[in-house]
Amino acid sequence: MNFVAVVAALALVEYMVILLQTGRARQTYGINAPATTGDPVFERYYRVQQNTVEQLVIFFPALFLFAHYVSPRVAAGVGLLFIVGRALYARGYVAAPEKRGPGFGLSFGANVILVLGALIGALVG
Amino acid sequence: MNFVAVVAALALVEYMVILLQTGRARQTYGINAPATTGDPVFERYYRVQQNTVEQLVIFFPALFLFAHYVSPRVAAGVGLLFIVGRALYARGYVAAPEKRGPGFGLSFGANVILVLGALIGALVG
Amino acid sequence: MNFVAVVAALALVEYMVILLQTGRARQTYGINAPATTGDPVFERYYRVQQNTVEQLVIFFPALFLFAHYVSPRVAAGVGLLFIVGRALYARGYVAAPEKRGPGFGLSFGANVILVLGALIGALVG
Repeated sequence: MNFVAVVAALALVEYMVILLQTGRARQTYGINAPATTGDPVFERYYRVQQNTVEQLVIFFPALFLFAHYVSPRVAAGVGLLFIVGRALYARGYVAAPEKRGPGFGLSFGANVILVLGALIGALVG
Repeated sequence: MNFVAVVAALALVEYMVILLQTGRARQTYGINAPATTGDPVFERYYRVQQNTVEQLVIFFPALFLFAHYVSPRVAAGVGLLFIVGRALYARGYVAAPEKRGPGFGLSFGANVILVLGALIGALVG
Repeated sequence: MNFVAVVAALALVEYMVILLQTGRARQTYGINAPATTGDPVFERYYRVQQNTVEQLVIFFPALFLFAHYVSPRVAAGVGLLFIVGRALYARGYVAAPEKRGPGFGLSFGANVILVLGALIGALVG
């Protein structure tokens, strides 16, 4: 089993669940495409999705660079923290926007570790 | 010729065309930056672009993981379906938002195959 | 030192700075989540962030494909131009949206070179 690849694939599965939840919320709250506003709860789902895109753009390159230049095992472990953080973020944000902090902090913190590790590893590697 | 890399590069070319079409629509419909709303047809172009970003975040890691752990030839073939689906999605959505379904389904279905194949391949690989 | 990986990591660091600046602008201009509109200066920060995501989706796959199929040194050099272009774009856009052109052109031009090089390299490679 390649732990880094499994973690990357699990992050993609999690993100697809978030996409499907946003699509379902679009129907539940009657927001017709191309609109992305009009109901405060739908807008939370939509922002969870958008913010997850914004973080995944960091996550995948940083995960693979960290795995290559620092350690695959540590990369996989920090990647799991990212996935857990995203789940907490999504649950918190949909419940109430002010509850999005801890999950955001965990997933962003994981990304900071992956990026700084990748940078240092690539500089000395 | 590396089929997977060619398909990845073609997906990037297609996305750049979508970016340029959105930029042109911004001028055609007189939507001044930073606004992204104000004309229903411009909003369709903008949503095509946004949705393509949301799907490409899945596509590239899943394509390369599938190619590595399952089969490069199958990855390239499914990747071509993704590119065709995106073109249909863009054409349909700009014509009328309710016509975006088939193209979305084809490209999202391709992504589901790539992600599940990558996950299973990485678990047993 | 692996120049391509260093450039990729530096682009991630630059993007994280952009994310943090947008988060700070959210507080400065009193835009409460999930809203992304309501103040013209905040909207500039937010569009810088969004546009950077839209370009990074191209940048990372194209950078690594170009490095693999054409030249790692040239990839790293063009990648540096992308990073400089993004910084100019962010500075220009926040000052005034009509000043975003040169930085956008430099970073998008770098992406065009990386994508076309990757496509040609993968076709003949």
